[in-house]
Amino acid sequence: MNSLLHVVIAGIALGITVHGTVVKREVQTPGRFSPLTRNVTLADRNNCQPGDPQPPNRVDTAERVARLRQEIANYGLAAFIVPTDDDHQSEYVGDSDKRRKYISGFSGSAGTAVVLMEEQALWTDGRYFIQADDQLDCNWLLMKAYMPGTPSILQWLKDSLPAGARVGADPTLTSADTWNSYANSLSADNIDLIPVTPNLVDLIWTERPPYPDDPAFPLELKFTGKSWEEKVLEVRDEMRSTGTDVLVVTALDEVAWLLNLRGSDIPFNPVFRSYALVTMNTIELFTPAEKVNAEVEEHLHVNQCEEMLCVTIQNYDDIFPRLSSFEDDPLVSSVMISSSYSSTPGASYAIYNAVPASKRHQGVSPILFMKGRKNEVESQGMMKAHLKDAVALCDFLALLENEIIAGNYWDELSASAKSEEFRAQQEDYIGLSFDTISAAGPNAAVIHYSPSPETNRQIDDQSTYLLDSGAQYKDGTTDITRTLHFGVPTSFQIEAYTRVLMGAMDFAMMVFPVGFTLSDIDILARRPLYEAGLDYRHGTSHGIGMCLFVHESANNAYDIGFFGSDEPGYYEDGEFGIRLETTLTVVHKDTPHDFVSPMLGFEAVALVPFEPKLINTTLLSRQQCEAMNAYHATVRDVVGTELQNQGRFEGYDWVLRKTEPLAC
Amino acid sequence: MNSLLHVVIAGIALGITVHGTVVKREVQTPGRFSPLTRNVTLADRNNCQPGDPQPPNRVDTAERVARLRQEIANYGLAAFIVPTDDDHQSEYVGDSDKRRKYISGFSGSAGTAVVLMEEQALWTDGRYFIQADDQLDCNWLLMKAYMPGTPSILQWLKDSLPAGARVGADPTLTSADTWNSYANSLSADNIDLIPVTPNLVDLIWTERPPYPDDPAFPLELKFTGKSWEEKVLEVRDEMRSTGTDVLVVTALDEVAWLLNLRGSDIPFNPVFRSYALVTMNTIELFTPAEKVNAEVEEHLHVNQCEEMLCVTIQNYDDIFPRLSSFEDDPLVSSVMISSSYSSTPGASYAIYNAVPASKRHQGVSPILFMKGRKNEVESQGMMKAHLKDAVALCDFLALLENEIIAGNYWDELSASAKSEEFRAQQEDYIGLSFDTISAAGPNAAVIHYSPSPETNRQIDDQSTYLLDSGAQYKDGTTDITRTLHFGVPTSFQIEAYTRVLMGAMDFAMMVFPVGFTLSDIDILARRPLYEAGLDYRHGTSHGIGMCLFVHESANNAYDIGFFGSDEPGYYEDGEFGIRLETTLTVVHKDTPHDFVSPMLGFEAVALVPFEPKLINTTLLSRQQCEAMNAYHATVRDVVGTELQNQGRFEGYDWVLRKTEPLAC
Repeated sequence: MNSLLHVVIAGIALGITVHGTVVKREVQTPGRFSPLTRNVTLADRNNCQPGDPQPPNRVDTAERVARLRQEIANYGLAAFIVPTDDDHQSEYVGDSDKRRKYISGFSGSAGTAVVLMEEQALWTDGRYFIQADDQLDCNWLLMKAYMPGTPSILQWLKDSLPAGARVGADPTLTSADTWNSYANSLSADNIDLIPVTPNLVDLIWTERPPYPDDPAFPLELKFTGKSWEEKVLEVRDEMRSTGTDVLVVTALDEVAWLLNLRGSDIPFNPVFRSYALVTMNTIELFTPAEKVNAEVEEHLHVNQCEEMLCVTIQNYDDIFPRLSSFEDDPLVSSVMISSSYSSTPGASYAIYNAVPASKRHQGVSPILFMKGRKNEVESQGMMKAHLKDAVALCDFLALLENEIIAGNYWDELSASAKSEEFRAQQEDYIGLSFDTISAAGPNAAVIHYSPSPETNRQIDDQSTYLLDSGAQYKDGTTDITRTLHFGVPTSFQIEAYTRVLMGAMDFAMMVFPVGFTLSDIDILARRPLYEAGLDYRHGTSHGIGMCLFVHESANNAYDIGFFGSDEPGYYEDGEFGIRLETTLTVVHKDTPHDFVSPMLGFEAVALVPFEPKLINTTLLSRQQCEAMNAYHATVRDVVGTELQNQGRFEGYDWVLRKTEPLAC
Repeated sequence: MNSLLHVVIAGIALGITVHGTVVKREVQTPGRFSPLTRNVTLADRNNCQPGDPQPPNRVDTAERVARLRQEIANYGLAAFIVPTDDDHQSEYVGDSDKRRKYISGFSGSAGTAVVLMEEQALWTDGRYFIQADDQLDCNWLLMKAYMPGTPSILQWLKDSLPAGARVGADPTLTSADTWNSYANSLSADNIDLIPVTPNLVDLIWTERPPYPDDPAFPLELKFTGKSWEEKVLEVRDEMRSTGTDVLVVTALDEVAWLLNLRGSDIPFNPVFRSYALVTMNTIELFTPAEKVNAEVEEHLHVNQCEEMLCVTIQNYDDIFPRLSSFEDDPLVSSVMISSSYSSTPGASYAIYNAVPASKRHQGVSPILFMKGRKNEVESQGMMKAHLKDAVALCDFLALLENEIIAGNYWDELSASAKSEEFRAQQEDYIGLSFDTISAAGPNAAVIHYSPSPETNRQIDDQSTYLLDSGAQYKDGTTDITRTLHFGVPTSFQIEAYTRVLMGAMDFAMMVFPVGFTLSDIDILARRPLYEAGLDYRHGTSHGIGMCLFVHESANNAYDIGFFGSDEPGYYEDGEFGIRLETTLTVVHKDTPHDFVSPMLGFEAVALVPFEPKLINTTLLSRQQCEAMNAYHATVRDVVGTELQNQGRFEGYDWVLRKTEPLAC
């Protein structure tokens, strides 16, 4: 599944940024994406003239926004900012936290709404321009972030508001780095950024769903490869090296990874609402009481100290007074909270603010790097999970292809449901890892489309069908995209598919020295598209967690044990979409000479065939063609065998058909 | 000619940096270059054991360093820093300014010497490790910048000196950005950076050559395409947009470009010692009196004001009191001096310090960008210059090949002299654009080798011969590298040459959107080498001036009218070296689709054949092979015709032989 990664969203929220990595991305982004022809002004938005037919999934938010404006006025504010975040700056949030969706109608995973007394606007990135245009009612300005002429949020606020104006935002829903740069920038124009609690949207959200009350559950050692006690000791080593007395763990996947616990508080993300505090001799878990049942208590040896490895359970909300209490603790001189890094936004401003300033230290959480380098057991698990996933997907795609060719009716929703059913049959399945992107024809051009009854289209043999899906298994998180065509593709569809495939191949084949980052090799995935004047308006790769977030920050440089996606695409607005996404892992590469050594490279982990009828082999280089055939041979061997073992012969036949070697 | 570019050298001097671009380069650099096996410690340096045979070009600096230490002591200092720079932070400096070479013996274009009372060390980058090891006497520590384990200058100073120590440096020879970050970092360890004038090396340099007294000369409109008056008006427009009252032009190529003047104060660089001050109604040129003869006076309308376009001539050294005088000038509130940018280090600390702090503004000189985008006349001139250069080079290489095959004696120096002679026969020739790198066998592995009587080798048929050379013509600056073999190359030489060629081709063929920078596409030149475990320890490209510096800063993003090199290589220490350098210019590229538009790409400007016997066509992709044949067809057509026109039939036959299409 594709991701511009959270940092870009933070960038959108930010307008300006202070953190190095973020600045770099912001600076690069405008050059990377080409301007859409649609403008940001209200008048130019699709179907926003009186009497125009409205898209079926447009949401009328007029009444909600009016009630929010009443609260904004009650609080003496001139504006209120509604970001996507939850209290932990998660990329995906639970239904109770979908405030931005509630107020704007826009359901994409990334975006920030800003409501002024007279106007309201939503910023989102290139993945979501079409979706936002479809979902936002005509009173919303759609701000296409990074497009020439689109103001940043800060610029828009400054242009719209008088000096002395007060802008409100919820301090728990904005990262400290974003909040501080926001506040600094606005104050230069004499505008105040005011922390507002409770959240004004919550005040007017009449049917806001409650938080889930499911307990957390332990993930066994056979999946994690390392006990939580070992992890805590390693974290303490890192803390010692930086002189940290207290590590405040705020990201939900970091808490889950550290304690080998999982949960189900956020759809698709097996985590639970919690904070952790680690000191040299204590571990405190702040979480709602219902998360900790007897199994979790036993797993954590709650209140049974062994060599400073026991966990005490605290009320979820008590994290704030606990952090403030360090003010008077003479044994604590350095409290570390997470700063933004790569796609990780870091701790909220509320957390930042609760830590006494004199003891506060912002840095990249050591857990982020430890989590990113999968250990041997985790790596094996990720490969096993992707094999199971490939079996389910190949078997499902075989069924779908046979059904469509037989003339039976399938649509995006029924295909999505069936693919989920196939995955659920695999061992140690927990759930999906994100909302399945099952998209036919023009819907496939909506980069982060997810089907709804209003937008649901039949899957036919007239255009491409794009399926971007993944699952959470106890041994790994998966994410794969394949694009198919059940009829006769156009020559442009074939060219676009082939160029996307060429980019995916070149990226996956890259051999590089230690120290390389995604931005060093991103060009390889885009080059075959650029040559034809094509591109895609999203990133090429994101890290993937182990039974955790499907979008995970990568370390600064590629590292053995990293798992990430390789996902170029091409999207022809209103016509069709193509994306090919294959999970890769970083491995050592042998080279004939060793002037530079060691060299790193990728190995494909996701093993699902490409579509031969969409490949024009005359465009491929010999190297690309041979690599494709070699990949298909592996798929046939590894997935084919497992399909046979599981008695899935329809899928097996399909794999045999799709993996026939092509002439190079 | 190859360049890590000045910024990296500034980085060496810096140890740490504050400027964004510089930090990015510094962070990336260690990952890009592989560690050498030779260590930095004294004991491990080649031939540095008592009684070991010394390389022929080693310089014994013991007595000079002893005299410098005496001065260091006299001034109450603990250390003195000797960088490469002149007063204008030029990359290449005149003989009078070669203080670092004098004190250390190391003659490379980049490096910084630091002399303590007990130890002395020289920092240089990967292009120069071998040369520095050969030239430095055994008392010098060789600090291989960016290699793991090599301390930065700052770190070494901090580790070596006690708190309270005073480190001296010449404020005119260090850029303000470097000086300030240096001073800040050292002061954190209670070490003071002290501006010392006169330069302590000058005090002990007994036979220091005087500065040249040649006058400047005007470059005609038919070469520059724009009068200096137009340029001044455009500069003033830029100044107006940034609220600048006074622009201080400190880089010698910027003064020369602005006023359409050239000179001969620095070997290979047609510039003259000068500063310029531009205000909204005045232009002041600070230069030694002998630079301005009657022709220059007339060109500049000296003292003949026309609509605020006249130039007054000031004494060179009066720039400092003039800058200080703005303190009391109520009409001047913003004086802009250059900060570091790309390969340009910006103004010296002495200039920075002379400008009143309250009026001082640091920014990237607008002239840097204007100069980088060659106008139509300049672009045509650059192409013409490269055609003349190709004619001279092809004719010379034909002669050399025929001579070597005939068994006649040639060596690096005689070949270098002969190639210069051939270039000098071309129209509007001024001189070479850098010291010719004429390198045979193992000398070609020394990336920035230049032959001397001590190191001179015969050119035979046993190894590669690398010729990296270029010239200054009035219509353009050239820079080209070709590598040949006059016998039977080894299979490894063929593989390395072919992979270097593949990288050069892939880089040159890249099609990319507006906004791209070198770092986005650098990987294309290295990829074919990485696949075999090979690499080169230098940058892939540098900008090229128009009858100015052979290494010129590029704008942040590629722009129409940019001229730069494409120069991957491979160097097998002690054995052979390969580099293929071709000047390219940025042009619009047509693409079959226009999802992204406009697209940019390169066009080859330097037109000299590659060596067929060193190419293994089975390694080439079809695209690479066809591109090579197309390039050769152009060479045959364009250069072949001109060789015939000039009656150079030996060269013409050689071009015909080398440009036979290879089977793809």
